[in-house]
Amino acid sequence: MALFLGIDGGGTKCRAAIADASGRILGQAQTGSANIASNADAARDNILAATTQALTEAIGAQGVAAELPRLTAVMGLAGANIPSSSARLQAALPFAARIISDAVIAVKGALLGGDGVVASLGTGSVFAVQRAGVVRQIGGWGFILGDEGSGAWLGRALLSRALRSVDGLVPQTPLLTAVIAELGGPDRVVTFARDSRPADFAGFALRIAASDDVAAREIMTQAEADVGAAIALLQGDRPVPLVFLGGLGASYAPRFAGRYQIAEPLGSALNGALWLARQGGA
Amino acid sequence: MALFLGIDGGGTKCRAAIADASGRILGQAQTGSANIASNADAARDNILAATTQALTEAIGAQGVAAELPRLTAVMGLAGANIPSSSARLQAALPFAARIISDAVIAVKGALLGGDGVVASLGTGSVFAVQRAGVVRQIGGWGFILGDEGSGAWLGRALLSRALRSVDGLVPQTPLLTAVIAELGGPDRVVTFARDSRPADFAGFALRIAASDDVAAREIMTQAEADVGAAIALLQGDRPVPLVFLGGLGASYAPRFAGRYQIAEPLGSALNGALWLARQGGA
Repeated sequence: MALFLGIDGGGTKCRAAIADASGRILGQAQTGSANIASNADAARDNILAATTQALTEAIGAQGVAAELPRLTAVMGLAGANIPSSSARLQAALPFAARIISDAVIAVKGALLGGDGVVASLGTGSVFAVQRAGVVRQIGGWGFILGDEGSGAWLGRALLSRALRSVDGLVPQTPLLTAVIAELGGPDRVVTFARDSRPADFAGFALRIAASDDVAAREIMTQAEADVGAAIALLQGDRPVPLVFLGGLGASYAPRFAGRYQIAEPLGSALNGALWLARQGGA
Repeated sequence: MALFLGIDGGGTKCRAAIADASGRILGQAQTGSANIASNADAARDNILAATTQALTEAIGAQGVAAELPRLTAVMGLAGANIPSSSARLQAALPFAARIISDAVIAVKGALLGGDGVVASLGTGSVFAVQRAGVVRQIGGWGFILGDEGSGAWLGRALLSRALRSVDGLVPQTPLLTAVIAELGGPDRVVTFARDSRPADFAGFALRIAASDDVAAREIMTQAEADVGAAIALLQGDRPVPLVFLGGLGASYAPRFAGRYQIAEPLGSALNGALWLARQGGA
């Protein structure tokens, strides 16, 4: 019986699933971080542990050693865009694996083989279109230079605007005043920004998206414009369903419901990796 | 004879000057970094060394120990906006000193007692107005949340736009294509940004300011709008001379020559610290 392995490896956790040729999931497991760019050894260990656990659940511990090298595997990993890291990982695994970005398996999970645009808006942001099975991705360049409309982008925009309101360059609003007070004053806003990671900035995002404050609405208008430009580019003049993913997906979807056909994702990123493995894998 | 000490302490060097009551400079010295927020001990050591050297040049080595505690000192220091750091430094020095921000002594040096607006545009940016001797400062919140129009801001805008051109969201231009190629491709643009300090981003600034490339011109248009908003706020409806400082000052000045009376700075930041010391000091 041919077995298929899907891996969804991100910065905080690594998920593995084993399925048969029909797609039925026989075993699943979750371990720690699998970012091959930031810590390749930990990523390999967590991938192997998750795989072994899922395979044990699927076929029992006795068969694992014999079955591992026969797996057909697709892994979507954070940091997979660095070819040297991917090659080193492939060489260190006891099975052949196709390594692609975590963004691509998210797209495949959301659409499987169908046409569509995927707007993924969490701590970061990335956009993709699939037509006839071919995926084109834009954005996703990270917090410093890109990730427009993402949670981190929204949080930074809020803090930046709060400081501009202190200077008198934009009006003070209840939300801006509250955020400055919560952080302990303007100088503390600066030190917060200096010491924070994208996820910390993103901590303000859902509050911004849900707020009626005029500053929040202006930030969301700019974010919607940036997100809309990416979606419009990928939609082109041949409209396809639009799927929102990520923690902010539900905040953005209503803003685009009048312009596009919004669809729910068909499955998770892990489903996407498994689906790809069953399509041919390594 | 009363002696006055001015200190201009920045992230890379500390300058000291000793003057008499008439403003005549009797001794000068330069040592290393004096950022009291990032390294208070090194700042104190470099301030003391520069002071001792300048005082030795002014009055000879014999008199230094007796004269040090009698100095009237004003120090403009990077990081001086953190009160606990300033208080600790004052307690560790053998003379009474008024500690203010490096931005304020730059304004005082540029205008001495006169009215005017100072736009300081280097790696960072900060803006100030002086009316009847009272200084009001805006901006200067740093690279992550502010510093609009600064060198670092311009460089980041260029790299961000370059990646957006790769995605097809903005047109590719010769400058954007050249910058991506120089850094080794889009993924290397991302790693450059991740590993760079504001001064590294600012390395692109003079090239942007001098370029006829359409991308550079659009970035400069946005920068000029942000810088112009800060200047307009400080000018209000009572026009005063406008002084540009910093490595990008000469790039911005012509853009505002039609709107304001552009003036040259009267002196350096070190002159500003000395001038303040002579006005009353600690």
